[in-house]
Amino acid sequence: MISFENDYAEGAHPKILQRLMETNLVQQVGYGNDEYCASAKEKIRAACQCPDADIFFISGGTQSNSLVIRAMLQPFQGVVSVTTGHINGHEAGAIEYTGHKVMPLPHHDGKMAAADLEGMMKTFYGDPSHPHMVFPGMVYISHPTEYGTLYTKDELKALSRVCRKYDLPLFLDGARLGYGLMSHDTDVSLTDIAAYCDVFYIGGTKVGALCGEAVVFPRHNAPRHFFTMVKQHGALLAKGRLLGVQFDTLFTDDLYFDISRHAIDLAEKMKKGFQERGYQFFLHSPTNQQFIVMEDEELKQLDAHVRYSFWEKIDDTHTCVRFATSWATREEDVDTLLSLLKKPV
Amino acid sequence: MISFENDYAEGAHPKILQRLMETNLVQQVGYGNDEYCASAKEKIRAACQCPDADIFFISGGTQSNSLVIRAMLQPFQGVVSVTTGHINGHEAGAIEYTGHKVMPLPHHDGKMAAADLEGMMKTFYGDPSHPHMVFPGMVYISHPTEYGTLYTKDELKALSRVCRKYDLPLFLDGARLGYGLMSHDTDVSLTDIAAYCDVFYIGGTKVGALCGEAVVFPRHNAPRHFFTMVKQHGALLAKGRLLGVQFDTLFTDDLYFDISRHAIDLAEKMKKGFQERGYQFFLHSPTNQQFIVMEDEELKQLDAHVRYSFWEKIDDTHTCVRFATSWATREEDVDTLLSLLKKPV
Amino acid sequence: MISFENDYAEGAHPKILQRLMETNLVQQVGYGNDEYCASAKEKIRAACQCPDADIFFISGGTQSNSLVIRAMLQPFQGVVSVTTGHINGHEAGAIEYTGHKVMPLPHHDGKMAAADLEGMMKTFYGDPSHPHMVFPGMVYISHPTEYGTLYTKDELKALSRVCRKYDLPLFLDGARLGYGLMSHDTDVSLTDIAAYCDVFYIGGTKVGALCGEAVVFPRHNAPRHFFTMVKQHGALLAKGRLLGVQFDTLFTDDLYFDISRHAIDLAEKMKKGFQERGYQFFLHSPTNQQFIVMEDEELKQLDAHVRYSFWEKIDDTHTCVRFATSWATREEDVDTLLSLLKKPV
Amino acid sequence: MISFENDYAEGAHPKILQRLMETNLVQQVGYGNDEYCASAKEKIRAACQCPDADIFFISGGTQSNSLVIRAMLQPFQGVVSVTTGHINGHEAGAIEYTGHKVMPLPHHDGKMAAADLEGMMKTFYGDPSHPHMVFPGMVYISHPTEYGTLYTKDELKALSRVCRKYDLPLFLDGARLGYGLMSHDTDVSLTDIAAYCDVFYIGGTKVGALCGEAVVFPRHNAPRHFFTMVKQHGALLAKGRLLGVQFDTLFTDDLYFDISRHAIDLAEKMKKGFQERGYQFFLHSPTNQQFIVMEDEELKQLDAHVRYSFWEKIDDTHTCVRFATSWATREEDVDTLLSLLKKPV
Repeated sequence: MISFENDYAEGAHPKILQRLMETNLVQQVGYGNDEYCASAKEKIRAACQCPDADIFFISGGTQSNSLVIRAMLQPFQGVVSVTTGHINGHEAGAIEYTGHKVMPLPHHDGKMAAADLEGMMKTFYGDPSHPHMVFPGMVYISHPTEYGTLYTKDELKALSRVCRKYDLPLFLDGARLGYGLMSHDTDVSLTDIAAYCDVFYIGGTKVGALCGEAVVFPRHNAPRHFFTMVKQHGALLAKGRLLGVQFDTLFTDDLYFDISRHAIDLAEKMKKGFQERGYQFFLHSPTNQQFIVMEDEELKQLDAHVRYSFWEKIDDTHTCVRFATSWATREEDVDTLLSLLKKPV
Repeated sequence: MISFENDYAEGAHPKILQRLMETNLVQQVGYGNDEYCASAKEKIRAACQCPDADIFFISGGTQSNSLVIRAMLQPFQGVVSVTTGHINGHEAGAIEYTGHKVMPLPHHDGKMAAADLEGMMKTFYGDPSHPHMVFPGMVYISHPTEYGTLYTKDELKALSRVCRKYDLPLFLDGARLGYGLMSHDTDVSLTDIAAYCDVFYIGGTKVGALCGEAVVFPRHNAPRHFFTMVKQHGALLAKGRLLGVQFDTLFTDDLYFDISRHAIDLAEKMKKGFQERGYQFFLHSPTNQQFIVMEDEELKQLDAHVRYSFWEKIDDTHTCVRFATSWATREEDVDTLLSLLKKPV
Repeated sequence: MISFENDYAEGAHPKILQRLMETNLVQQVGYGNDEYCASAKEKIRAACQCPDADIFFISGGTQSNSLVIRAMLQPFQGVVSVTTGHINGHEAGAIEYTGHKVMPLPHHDGKMAAADLEGMMKTFYGDPSHPHMVFPGMVYISHPTEYGTLYTKDELKALSRVCRKYDLPLFLDGARLGYGLMSHDTDVSLTDIAAYCDVFYIGGTKVGALCGEAVVFPRHNAPRHFFTMVKQHGALLAKGRLLGVQFDTLFTDDLYFDISRHAIDLAEKMKKGFQERGYQFFLHSPTNQQFIVMEDEELKQLDAHVRYSFWEKIDDTHTCVRFATSWATREEDVDTLLSLLKKPV
Repeated sequence: MISFENDYAEGAHPKILQRLMETNLVQQVGYGNDEYCASAKEKIRAACQCPDADIFFISGGTQSNSLVIRAMLQPFQGVVSVTTGHINGHEAGAIEYTGHKVMPLPHHDGKMAAADLEGMMKTFYGDPSHPHMVFPGMVYISHPTEYGTLYTKDELKALSRVCRKYDLPLFLDGARLGYGLMSHDTDVSLTDIAAYCDVFYIGGTKVGALCGEAVVFPRHNAPRHFFTMVKQHGALLAKGRLLGVQFDTLFTDDLYFDISRHAIDLAEKMKKGFQERGYQFFLHSPTNQQFIVMEDEELKQLDAHVRYSFWEKIDDTHTCVRFATSWATREEDVDTLLSLLKKPV
């Protein structure tokens, strides 16, 4: 059985485990004040070209989202997201648990349109009863999105412009950021993201780490006492080194980018394979997740050999499913998958 | 200047003020344990034909909504509402502040369709990743809705059936309940509501009281220690008598129903006037709120004489506005309004 | 049966009911934007000598406490209170429900000592692990306290000095403020309170109103969009006029102060009566609440004629009970009470 | 420089890292549904002799505390803890952030007395105004306590008896549980804990793991949909295997107990060394943390060679400090520490 179910089916990149072993018995102070965290932060600052960035390592994506959103919103504000945003549907109400509303906008292949955001703001402030409503207080996007799609630099710039006009911090969820940056079909770099966003995170869990996301406030703009809020959310690891060593390794010798490129290359190969075989794509994804509309009959046969993700029912006999590659995907497994499909047309 | 801006532009029905004066110096125990509250509860139980109902008097609608919803949901659950539900748009995030998500369904002239609700439940439980999502935990509707529309008895029954199938308490916001019950165009009675819902409230603020809603758990089904939660929400009045006297008066000699009928009769007169003059209705409302699409030019002239509510922009030259009657509306003011409009066609 | 159980056993001062009747049918806009609220605010500003004060009328004390505290704290902060503070013991966890800790200090007859507060701050910032703890973020006191005691001007000044040194807003709960200001034994005026505090409220519920507290931010220092937070807490009355008319009446011709003095005069008479009869006082209270340690046997006999409050058990045969006067107390009832006690010694 | 600052200064026990490497590329499903978690749970059930236990692996102690407490309390309840409990002072308000009050009892060398708890319950239910107060809803203790002290079996039994009498779930924080179980001076076993408590956790972070605590509901009594709440708190790791592999290793061949015994043996050696040298102990600790009152002058000299924890100032010239051993402590480092102290007397 081979798995394309997701991008977190294996452990960590071997170099990370190696480094954990090497550093294991060096005594360090706790709570992220260790030397590995310090080194990792410096390397990330360099990669982002943000010498003043405030950086925090958090164990997972939902925790990062709820922490950042709560810390940046005022009590009377909510966070704007497209309906398909991870925070809106797949985090068990983690944002609402912080006391804030997720304010939905329609999505365009998973993305938010600057025009939709501007329209929301105009409608809000144009309504005389808006003080009785939740104030839009920040904007949440992800890159890649839930659908594996990517913002262009122009789209990001346009969103950023509306955000700054209305004083809305722009927050980018980069749980799969590596796969976005290494896409063959993107003009957005890490420094662009640092320039256009007010806070973002560099995902580790899905890009080679055992766990961990690096939350970056690019312009020394972390909310006051964010450290204490991390603790309050139960998100402060006593052994912060666990995250520090991982990100230090990922940002040494471009490992993060190299392993992301590997996943993209294999996703492109898989995509080409599906295309050649005449499969219907649910949408065009330039990253490591491919969404295919397949016949239920064929899926039944595939089930004996391959794990994939259910996405949604299309009709009585078809289902959209997701195949994901990752840093750990083996080319031979892609070959096996393709060999199990219909013949090329 | 006359006002049809809303149904809370005046104080209280004179009989209420009269009764407040008569009872003013009688010493009573506090926090709703006074004899007026006890008497009012008995009268409401009789009107609902629910001899075992648990009843709580709460100062306003948003407070009632947030209290009831928080008390009835488990931490992993959200409340289902149509997008136009008051809790979704006009309560400044009061529900999210309790930590729970408002889970939106499309509306049909402000109403929720049983089929939409059932579809949501099937999709939810059909998704293998639903444990990562907010569980739909109760259903919120209002009657009349935000658009002044009413559920039929069959619609209510159908919703109730789906709710019971999926173990979802059905909560009816009756901020304007009197106007719904006295509509010329309804087959839903107070006892129907008590039978089909698991909790509802009888609005006082908009139907003749200075303030106050009577929250009814019809089958002795109030959440445990609801009283303590009322206190915790800052919603427990030391002088509970203020609410007791008001509801005791409203439910003496059918006052609540009589004054509601008055509002409906004048709303019908107003509606007929608009119809005869060829005005475009935004939708058909059988209650005390009428939504008219008017020319901005005409509105500008009306502004000197009449207050109404902005509802939404229709196009560059038209706006939907709301005219509301209430227990306090004077027939002569309706006549004046009609005289200011276009001539009958 | 006569009642000294509390200071909210009756309705409202008759002048308030009179004014509610007079204004009842005047149409007003809702949500506190009516002319009565505006007038009441002006009168309160004048009484406080704070021409720029932001003022909000809230229906009760617990609501005011939770709203103000939540609005003024950052997520990583808590509110400092003496252990006997109302927010610490008698509000069913309303403050913790906002997500913030009540940080206890020992009390001195119900009061907080500036030295204790300064000690807490020094210990906190002196502890290297303080970023793992709740930051003291504001100070809550009440005047009169739960024990009916009063701060002297010097004590208030000292507290204010420590607060400003450590950037802690000072919040004074004035649920019984009138009785404190009219005490025969105080040097603290309303303008002192406005000068030394950053926010306080003037209690109406216990001083002649049906309900309502006037929250005063004396130097135009209300938190941003406090109105929206009032709505979010379910504390915004549609008919704001109910509170406006009451406070406008209370602050017309010094009514608030006159009726408070009445309660104090009768409390002093009662106190003298207890003293002459050799009763043991639990502590010295210069306001409208008197705390007496009585024999359980005598209380049993009193129970047939008089209502009072249980305070706490002293030993197997004695109990501390509270007798409260109010604006509504009749001198003849005080006489009756005294006639039921032991003879003067 | 050697460190006795805490018990989390190193990484993980080498066997854990070894096992992480061996399993690294085996594909597993996410979110704790992997085979390593399943195996670890079975081993923990066996160790606890609780075949029906519900077990969840959570990344840290504060997260475990806030999750368990929120999931087990009703909205009107708080959690009882001694003043020195970790949740009361050192978790940045994580419990209050869940909306619940920490209800303090005095401590006895860090422990809660059953008699104090029973007294609190009697006072609470004896107070006629208790519905206006937070209901004590569960009890939190830690074993070892913050002071390294241990409950005897009789003390635990007595607490459990009071808890069951008043329907209060008993929750034991076992962040350092291994060190408690392996103490030379305890009669409490893991099965005792499972028998007397309603929920507890077996600490990994401080006992050889990189991170992680195993939360055990011993009698299949996990709150409904606890998994979804873990997600909502942002505490669900995508790669649950990280925790599964660690606990599976710790509970293979008694590793957890063996490495805990190692720490205890060295703590006892250190303790004997301090005793022989005439040092004053702050209190008697039978576990891996030793609290010594030392002269500030001597500490200044020690600072060049040894890391320890500040506990509290005793007087102008003395400080209480903590020396902790762990699974990773080397005997030679204890020898070095002792050689740096005063000579034996």
